[in-house]
Parts: sequence; structure tokens; C-alpha cells
Amino acid sequence: MFADAVGYRLRRAHLSVMQNFNETLAAKGLRPADFALLMLLTKNSGLKQSEVAQALGVQRANFVAIVDGLEQRGFVERRKSEVDRRVQSLYLTPEGFAYLDEIRPVWQGYEQRITELLGGPEASAELCALLGRLYTEG
Amino acid sequence: MFADAVGYRLRRAHLSVMQNFNETLAAKGLRPADFALLMLLTKNSGLKQSEVAQALGVQRANFVAIVDGLEQRGFVERRKSEVDRRVQSLYLTPEGFAYLDEIRPVWQGYEQRITELLGGPEASAELCALLGRLYTEG
Repeated sequence: MFADAVGYRLRRAHLSVMQNFNETLAAKGLRPADFALLMLLTKNSGLKQSEVAQALGVQRANFVAIVDGLEQRGFVERRKSEVDRRVQSLYLTPEGFAYLDEIRPVWQGYEQRITELLGGPEASAELCALLGRLYTEG
Repeated sequence: MFADAVGYRLRRAHLSVMQNFNETLAAKGLRPADFALLMLLTKNSGLKQSEVAQALGVQRANFVAIVDGLEQRGFVERRKSEVDRRVQSLYLTPEGFAYLDEIRPVWQGYEQRITELLGGPEASAELCALLGRLYTEG
């Protein structure tokens, strides 16, 4: 059947769980792409800008605007590579970490609702493991 | 840990598997939202336009443009509700079904690659079942 397509289901599930979350995040002045970028840098501080843009599936023009905004708020920092000065890497600042901590109740409540929909922490861990096979951590 | 968030992983996995697919679809003159709309209607012909827009997470202005485009190509049809003439429902036409059949090799090849990444059909079925708990089929 058409609608059994994994890709289609990924899209539907992603959009469904994001809608609620995005409204909550927006109230905190954060767009989904901002949040995804901050989350990505928690595990991958120092990634090249081009790698971050690709991992997040963001177009170049939008990407520059996102990083500009987060840099102005002091959450991320661009640093030129020592090896190649044309390459810039991105770092999460202590303020960025503190901000994610501050909004932790928001995304943890959201995680909690997803876990309930899935049927418990075991199902949630299973889903995380399967999803993790579909992209490289960067 | 931050990056263990299910929502974040859904986003990363979705974007990752979509990038490749979207390029292939674009060569066939189809954008991801077009494809998702056609897929949705295979199982839910006759959904109200507002329900379709919500299920696909598309803004009203974009939604109208998407449906206009697909209607011009003869793949979908808008019909006024018998009960309330202000409400319009969407139907996949025989041409729409034929078109999905025609591009079947594209999305089946893509499904095949996802299944390989996941580690086999069993893992793929498991992922489909878990994702299905996160949205209503409409």
C-alpha cells in the first residue's frame, strides 16, 4: 500500500509531533530550526558551518540568518579554522547551554507526551535506536 | 542527554532520508508536499481541505497553491460538500492513481534504501508501527 511508505510515515509523524512543540517554542522566541541547531551543537561543538547546514537540511540563506540570530543572543559562536581561515566552525557557548537548561521543562514535557503516545519508555528507546540508523550523528 | 530527544531524532531522520528522495522527485516535477498530499489521499479520499492542510502541516497560502497545481495536472479534484457548500473535499482522480503507479519505482527504490539502512524488513515494519502511533490516519 502507498501509505505504508516509511518516508511518508516519517513525514507525518514528524509534522504531527512538531506542531504542538513549535507553538510552545515560539512562545520562548525559538523556531524549530534554532532549537535543532542548538541541540546538534550539544553533541557536536565545532562542526563546520557547511556540515551543520547539511545536517539540518537548511538552505544557505536561511542558515546564515539562523546563526546570526543565535549569535546575537550569545548562544553560539563562529570561529575561523586554524587550518583554513575560510572555514568557520560553530560552537555552543556556556550561555547556549544555560538557555537549553532553562527551557528544559518545555522539551522534556514534550518528550513525555511523545513517550505516552508511543506506549512507554521502552517503545521510545526502540524508536530512537531505529531513527538513529537513518542519519549520521555528524 | 539533549540529543536523545525523540523529537530531535525524528527531525534529523526525516530530513536525512528526504534529501535524496526530494532530488529524485523534483526531477519528476513533484515537490515533497505534492507527493505527501497524493499519498494521503490514496487512503483518505474525500478529506476536507482543512483536514488535509493540517495533516500535512502546510500553511493555508501554500496549501492552495499545491492543490491548484495538482488539480491543473488532473491528479486531484475539489468537490463541494453536499451538506455545507462552503466546505470542499479533496479526491484523488484515476489520473492521480496512475501517476503514483508510474513513479512507483522511484519511491520503492527509496523505500528499499531506507529498509537497508534500518537493517531489514522487520526493523522497517517495527519503525512503521511506532511512527503510526504518533499521528492519526485522518
